[in-house]
Amino acid sequence: MPQLSESQNADASGTELDRRLQALIDGKTKPVGSLGRVEDLAMQIARLQGTLEPDTSSCGLTLFAGDHGMATAGVSAYPQTVTRQMLLNFLAGGAAANAFSDALGVSMQVVDAGVAGAPVEHPALLSRRIRGGTGNAIEGPAMSEDECSAALAAGELLGTEARQPVVAFGDMGIGNTAAASLVAAKLTGTDVADLTGRGTGLDDAGLERKRTLLKRAAARTAPQLEARDALREYAGFEIVMIAGAMLGAAGARRLVLVDGFICTAAANAALRIDPSIRNALVFAHRSAEGGHDRLLATLDAQPLLDLGLRLGEGTGALLAWPLVQAAGAFLRDMASFDSASVDGPA
Amino acid sequence: MPQLSESQNADASGTELDRRLQALIDGKTKPVGSLGRVEDLAMQIARLQGTLEPDTSSCGLTLFAGDHGMATAGVSAYPQTVTRQMLLNFLAGGAAANAFSDALGVSMQVVDAGVAGAPVEHPALLSRRIRGGTGNAIEGPAMSEDECSAALAAGELLGTEARQPVVAFGDMGIGNTAAASLVAAKLTGTDVADLTGRGTGLDDAGLERKRTLLKRAAARTAPQLEARDALREYAGFEIVMIAGAMLGAAGARRLVLVDGFICTAAANAALRIDPSIRNALVFAHRSAEGGHDRLLATLDAQPLLDLGLRLGEGTGALLAWPLVQAAGAFLRDMASFDSASVDGPA
Repeated sequence: MPQLSESQNADASGTELDRRLQALIDGKTKPVGSLGRVEDLAMQIARLQGTLEPDTSSCGLTLFAGDHGMATAGVSAYPQTVTRQMLLNFLAGGAAANAFSDALGVSMQVVDAGVAGAPVEHPALLSRRIRGGTGNAIEGPAMSEDECSAALAAGELLGTEARQPVVAFGDMGIGNTAAASLVAAKLTGTDVADLTGRGTGLDDAGLERKRTLLKRAAARTAPQLEARDALREYAGFEIVMIAGAMLGAAGARRLVLVDGFICTAAANAALRIDPSIRNALVFAHRSAEGGHDRLLATLDAQPLLDLGLRLGEGTGALLAWPLVQAAGAFLRDMASFDSASVDGPA
Repeated sequence: MPQLSESQNADASGTELDRRLQALIDGKTKPVGSLGRVEDLAMQIARLQGTLEPDTSSCGLTLFAGDHGMATAGVSAYPQTVTRQMLLNFLAGGAAANAFSDALGVSMQVVDAGVAGAPVEHPALLSRRIRGGTGNAIEGPAMSEDECSAALAAGELLGTEARQPVVAFGDMGIGNTAAASLVAAKLTGTDVADLTGRGTGLDDAGLERKRTLLKRAAARTAPQLEARDALREYAGFEIVMIAGAMLGAAGARRLVLVDGFICTAAANAALRIDPSIRNALVFAHRSAEGGHDRLLATLDAQPLLDLGLRLGEGTGALLAWPLVQAAGAFLRDMASFDSASVDGPA
């Protein structure tokens, strides 16, 4: 009877479950602690689900796309049209997120959070469009309070309704590293220049221009903002929806694989709104995007992977999913010294 | 026609294939270089197989078990009986290697390279027994020249006959971190104390005792040895077979996932025997076993993962397999800017 009772469930961080989990892990046929972070991951999933036999049977990726008014101001190496083209590429199965999802057995859904131009019509697309792109956050708020609330609520509902025990979220939106830098700067009170990277591949001159524009955008508001204000002023609809989806999924005890820079900024906002979701978050990887390192440090997050990725789309989160599978299998399926009649240390 | 002609195949490191691969990779719908080490991995597999559409359809793990005369001298925290018990645990499906293999879709076979006691009878066990454990390498050679050659040949044949395009090897043998430390020290001319770790979990006093014993063992021979001599003097039969299997698999153009400390020592020996296998090797992870860091550095190897594992059994290699799957899918399945009608940088 590995499933704990409701009263035990209610205190998933409680000592009784922890004690049983640690005894289970240390009884497995391996030297104590020798599976390193896989053991930590197993512990985290089991605590989140309140069981000694966590379900790691499936993972779902939800990709949110949205456009940014800032994109036309020169913060990105790519034209704004690419957001829409990539949305179509996701739906056609041709993006990195598709290739990784297919290879790793992850199901994927695509959400239009607010892509510029006429709404894309496609049977597989979930439309949660707030508007065809945000306002230019360099000059004024990216969205209204109502729009921000609607995006948070739409994301939260999608997160709550996730069918899989493990979920990943991904982003697409030309200009969204700029938006994420501003959101993260305002959440943490950091100089935005220290959280600004090359995004899709700006050269030195482009990076300097981006920094200048973001400093101007940051100067519009107080050095530090509440989460909803930081999102409203600077985020994109896809970033707000990801924050909402993290809140919803974590509330439903789904394990949340946090992708790179943009998703970490969304996670930062979600954590400010509800710090209790921390136990559901797995920081999947350290991105090569400038600023991610610093942002992870402010969250005291130790990502699992460090592979020089800087693509977004949830690609880094996807690569962490097999580690979760292995951690679940380790906890559920491995024999104990007793059951396998293996001797312990001499 | 992604398969290259024989003449092109013959020069897999040639500029023509490299040029076509780099163009293919850079044409994919993502910023140039944004998949980091996944791109490097894709390039490596494609060059090894001499094709633009590498086969990453399956991975096989071969686990080699063997006993060490040294084990009874006090170099390990666990009794020698555990090697045999763990061999049975692999065959019963209860070890970490089984849990990871099952979770990640890897097929597994188990080889008795020379486990102490009467031969284990099991329909799924491949017997390649050289002898029921090596001699005590602290006092004299671990094996004879004939035994070393036989173990290398047995491993090489298994590697050559691998059915999967991607292979991993794992080790089991109480005392084998001690053996690997000595082999690596003699291959590289390093002081063995600098390559000695806690193995299955020695305390400070145990580590000190292990260092003293290994220094005595090392003092028997010259500071640096040829690969076959280092293996014969200090290795276990499982380590020699792993070195042979790496040579065989690499020769058959299989991608070889190199596990932790013991497998890296085996890879070091294999590389000394045939440096051309380097392009087939993927260093899967940085182990927490003391000395692995240093050994990797002498090989100029940058492992993919760093998760604090120190178990062996191929567990770290298994966790790198999904990265290979993702890399292959990326190269084969992702759309190009042209095919998906996505705009490039502005």
